[in-house]
Amino acid sequence: MIEAGIVGGTGYAGVELLRLLAGHPEVRLKVITSRSEAGTPVADLFPNLRGHVDLAFSEPDEQTLKGLDVVFFSTPNGTAMQMAESLLAAGTRVVDLAADFRLRGADNWERWYGMPHACPDLLAEAVYGLPEMNREAVRGARLVANPGCYPTAVILGLLPLLEAGVVAPHGIVADAKSGASGAGRGAKVDTLLCEVEGSFKAYGAPGHRHLPEIRQYLADAAGRELGLTFVPHLVPMVRGIHATLYATLQEPQADLPALFAERYADEPFVDLLPAGSHPQTRTVRGSNLCRLALHRQADSDAVIVLSVIDNLVKGAAGQAVQNMNLMFGFTETAGLEGIPVLP
Amino acid sequence: MIEAGIVGGTGYAGVELLRLLAGHPEVRLKVITSRSEAGTPVADLFPNLRGHVDLAFSEPDEQTLKGLDVVFFSTPNGTAMQMAESLLAAGTRVVDLAADFRLRGADNWERWYGMPHACPDLLAEAVYGLPEMNREAVRGARLVANPGCYPTAVILGLLPLLEAGVVAPHGIVADAKSGASGAGRGAKVDTLLCEVEGSFKAYGAPGHRHLPEIRQYLADAAGRELGLTFVPHLVPMVRGIHATLYATLQEPQADLPALFAERYADEPFVDLLPAGSHPQTRTVRGSNLCRLALHRQADSDAVIVLSVIDNLVKGAAGQAVQNMNLMFGFTETAGLEGIPVLP
Amino acid sequence: MIEAGIVGGTGYAGVELLRLLAGHPEVRLKVITSRSEAGTPVADLFPNLRGHVDLAFSEPDEQTLKGLDVVFFSTPNGTAMQMAESLLAAGTRVVDLAADFRLRGADNWERWYGMPHACPDLLAEAVYGLPEMNREAVRGARLVANPGCYPTAVILGLLPLLEAGVVAPHGIVADAKSGASGAGRGAKVDTLLCEVEGSFKAYGAPGHRHLPEIRQYLADAAGRELGLTFVPHLVPMVRGIHATLYATLQEPQADLPALFAERYADEPFVDLLPAGSHPQTRTVRGSNLCRLALHRQADSDAVIVLSVIDNLVKGAAGQAVQNMNLMFGFTETAGLEGIPVLP
Amino acid sequence: MIEAGIVGGTGYAGVELLRLLAGHPEVRLKVITSRSEAGTPVADLFPNLRGHVDLAFSEPDEQTLKGLDVVFFSTPNGTAMQMAESLLAAGTRVVDLAADFRLRGADNWERWYGMPHACPDLLAEAVYGLPEMNREAVRGARLVANPGCYPTAVILGLLPLLEAGVVAPHGIVADAKSGASGAGRGAKVDTLLCEVEGSFKAYGAPGHRHLPEIRQYLADAAGRELGLTFVPHLVPMVRGIHATLYATLQEPQADLPALFAERYADEPFVDLLPAGSHPQTRTVRGSNLCRLALHRQADSDAVIVLSVIDNLVKGAAGQAVQNMNLMFGFTETAGLEGIPVLP
Repeated sequence: MIEAGIVGGTGYAGVELLRLLAGHPEVRLKVITSRSEAGTPVADLFPNLRGHVDLAFSEPDEQTLKGLDVVFFSTPNGTAMQMAESLLAAGTRVVDLAADFRLRGADNWERWYGMPHACPDLLAEAVYGLPEMNREAVRGARLVANPGCYPTAVILGLLPLLEAGVVAPHGIVADAKSGASGAGRGAKVDTLLCEVEGSFKAYGAPGHRHLPEIRQYLADAAGRELGLTFVPHLVPMVRGIHATLYATLQEPQADLPALFAERYADEPFVDLLPAGSHPQTRTVRGSNLCRLALHRQADSDAVIVLSVIDNLVKGAAGQAVQNMNLMFGFTETAGLEGIPVLP
Repeated sequence: MIEAGIVGGTGYAGVELLRLLAGHPEVRLKVITSRSEAGTPVADLFPNLRGHVDLAFSEPDEQTLKGLDVVFFSTPNGTAMQMAESLLAAGTRVVDLAADFRLRGADNWERWYGMPHACPDLLAEAVYGLPEMNREAVRGARLVANPGCYPTAVILGLLPLLEAGVVAPHGIVADAKSGASGAGRGAKVDTLLCEVEGSFKAYGAPGHRHLPEIRQYLADAAGRELGLTFVPHLVPMVRGIHATLYATLQEPQADLPALFAERYADEPFVDLLPAGSHPQTRTVRGSNLCRLALHRQADSDAVIVLSVIDNLVKGAAGQAVQNMNLMFGFTETAGLEGIPVLP
Repeated sequence: MIEAGIVGGTGYAGVELLRLLAGHPEVRLKVITSRSEAGTPVADLFPNLRGHVDLAFSEPDEQTLKGLDVVFFSTPNGTAMQMAESLLAAGTRVVDLAADFRLRGADNWERWYGMPHACPDLLAEAVYGLPEMNREAVRGARLVANPGCYPTAVILGLLPLLEAGVVAPHGIVADAKSGASGAGRGAKVDTLLCEVEGSFKAYGAPGHRHLPEIRQYLADAAGRELGLTFVPHLVPMVRGIHATLYATLQEPQADLPALFAERYADEPFVDLLPAGSHPQTRTVRGSNLCRLALHRQADSDAVIVLSVIDNLVKGAAGQAVQNMNLMFGFTETAGLEGIPVLP
Repeated sequence: MIEAGIVGGTGYAGVELLRLLAGHPEVRLKVITSRSEAGTPVADLFPNLRGHVDLAFSEPDEQTLKGLDVVFFSTPNGTAMQMAESLLAAGTRVVDLAADFRLRGADNWERWYGMPHACPDLLAEAVYGLPEMNREAVRGARLVANPGCYPTAVILGLLPLLEAGVVAPHGIVADAKSGASGAGRGAKVDTLLCEVEGSFKAYGAPGHRHLPEIRQYLADAAGRELGLTFVPHLVPMVRGIHATLYATLQEPQADLPALFAERYADEPFVDLLPAGSHPQTRTVRGSNLCRLALHRQADSDAVIVLSVIDNLVKGAAGQAVQNMNLMFGFTETAGLEGIPVLP
């Protein structure tokens, strides 16, 4: 049994992390901080947790956090990097659900996130917490950068193709669609029901912050720079990401289903669907699964990969728990066995 | 004032056609047929039309139809081709909202639609009713093949690029998303609210019927065969198509906004948005507009075009009315001036 | 042709008023004010109006407004009462879409709206703009208090019963349900898509501000005080109000359908449905109609009335235009003939 | 560990029952029958169960079913009554999620369900499976009639008031709203996304089949006949029921919160919310909870009770599992501890 804390946690990744930790057999949640909601019982803000989480939000207090085994940051970008160093020094491990430690190079981070990095020295130590790519490194990590939601769906879909070199390294398209919970729980006109319901749009076409993250880790997998275009879209629904991925096949004789099956043979959270499948986001709602399907199209040399996750679970809180499980030697699936509710 | 009839018309394109014709200054709607609903007042099936359309559905009767100026087929594929010849012979013009006359070559049609073509001779005469491509031909047409919903959105988005030859003819991706009304008003489990709401999926990835239609007309525009991959998706909403289009720029110095502005300068229903825009499908809901936006992305040689239409209007009934307006010499925008309702 | 202005107008009633006035044959919209959006083209905020409304929002300027024939206030409560007096003095007529002039008695207003009334003298002059109740008074009015959305649906449903005295004056229940646009376009967590989608709740059960408004005008109709309970609910949709109304029948032999038919015989915007109907809110979307259906239930002495409106049209902007039409002697339905878009 | 079977189970209550039984510590699911889907793996129809349920649907076979400890009927009305007798004779216990055994009197059943009852003798033995009302009887039952979804929400909300006699026995209004999953998974036009999304309507106002069920059991509680009006409504969402209940307070000094608190003090699945609360259906999504809130309104003698459940859980499959737990002496909450997923 370990003791865990959450910094932030009034957003949608926060309530999901609370739900998962409340049901986790190896974790005792000791503290959840929020300046704006200090004193409010968690169950008042998130009534689904009534009867399951008895904590109230509290002012962040570094001393309290230093006494914990692990602290999750479910905060805006730029917060974890202020506190990570001192927590690590105290022996507390850190999982950052924000972007502070995802990109290599403080300059690169500053370019995309618009502020100087507060602890560039930790960038090299931080482990990118995509277990399917970095399992061993996560096991030994003190500081894990939990991947972005879009990067999780996109990278898992393209990884086997790029590692094996069977597709061209340029002309790759990642057309991704997300439910509105990805935009957070902040009070903004753009995510009101009346602005989103019954409509569909792209956003961030000139360059979303998840673009450099996707390119960086897929370039690692390919062993070379990639030409990859990524456009995110807003779907009028709450949860779920669907990434439709297009790459040009270079090795026509490659057995793609076998390639994927082998690559993900031992992965508890990657589910390769039978030929001809079109995964629906709702089939992974509330679960840590990534479901993948492969397609070829008549008279086209494109490989099409369909990849779905729940953006708040495998794309955020669930992956954070998976990383925690690895860091502390628990069963990798502990606390993550819930069956999706459908319909 | 002309007299018009609708064959079929119990589906979603049908009710939209009824709405538009009910408000059209030059058209008197005389008959709407449906075997299954014969005798039912139109306003019982479609209560939005109560007080606006007094007709009842009737059994199809060829003699009655032959007395009309124009007949719209809002029927399943394979129906219009049974009746078109005799209507044309009687001097009645025909607009087919289904697919019977969209593809060149009876063999090709049979390959994609799974039945022999009943009147292959008419395929050569039929005019593909995309006014932005074929306006003059539509004006003189007796038989118009109204384009598919996806092809309308995709072709309008790519046309200027391919006509001008500024993008590569291969590696083109058309990732398209549609509301559920595109799947029709038939009683099917797959389009129940409980199956669609809160979820997102692709379908038809191995080859949707709109794929050969898109390829055929864009190849015409380009003057050569194209490598184009098209994947449609189902959005949990009622109306709207958003096509996200990716092509590789071959002429880096091309002025794309100017190219589009010039190509569509006189088009009443193509609205090129200012730089940086991300069109929302709701902004064209109920209207015949296609809104387009152009994007480039950091470190990518892709041209990104975002194209939105209302699948039931510019993608079906509205375009049919636009074609009728051209065929009969009416103002092209007659009956199509309504302002979208937002939110 | 009259000249009109809108004060406020960045909300959902505002955009709907803009849409209706843009298509109105007798109105030239001259100015729309907003402190927060001054300088922004209307079509940037509301892209459905692109190509239809060329104005930009401007700082409110009293001199400009005084030069107009009519000014609509689409502002928060408490704004119109600051400016109405001087506009009326200048000969400009005023339609207030907010609540400033709806209740009788400044004390009563202060009790429910939490601020002192700025011009109690005008309360007596203001006409409650429900044409079905007050048509003649509206025709001669300088100042119209446009009814609340819930009161419109509830009052129209109960009016014939209470005027005729066929139901008991106590034990009346008005259970009303509204789409989220009724909560406005303000940036609030409670109306984010992720808070509303897929869920249903009541609110304001201890006493919503529309309760005294409903009671006051229905008491007028009944000629006595009423025992009426009103609970509003939030429906996960954008537009529409459905009021389910229950009253105890006192005169069992009353011919209720005839009573309603007679009462609303000449009403252009009240549509009494055939026996057995259950009106859907979508059938009045974007239109100024109120659709009503009557029911009796086995072994129950309750009269059940189902009443639907579009909260932004008959419940706000459309009714304001209807009132303006009456005030200026235009055809009552001018600018309000659009057919609802379905599905 | 007991062995269980499901007859039917291709609908929404069926998939929910599968989900709950798959995670139940005391149950081994042996068989699920469906004539129409015989041979189809369960996970093909319900992909959320992939990896959790390995069964395929099979033809119903009475011998197999007789070898089980318990059989759930998740079938259309009129099916369970054909098989119950022989299963009970074989010692297999039966929980019917349909309506076959809910009403007293074969005549009454025939009146509301339009067919003669096949085994009227069992009506007297069947126990109405609302544990909060009938816990002891359920423990000893061989045959449980699982309550309807609306009756569960309505009865739990009114039970304390009627048992204590603090409200009038007439003039009671139950205005109830349900997500579309209550209408089932059948292919029907009325429940297509395009018919339900963005709209709200009442249905069954003249008398829904759940009306006699509600009246019968509440009359039991009150010890007398009741005047109760019930109108159900369709909410554009998947899951959840919200019942808004109105009754006239007869004993003004009654301490209603205390009355409810005492009545439900030991109930694991009834959650009485603090004063002033408005429960949201999403807070019980996927869970077996019924959440209740009490309200009084200014100048009204009505007691208002707000009651929410998940129609597929406490309103169907969850309550069936709760009943099974009681019948077999398991912990009443076994298999029902999942935390609702929010947002």
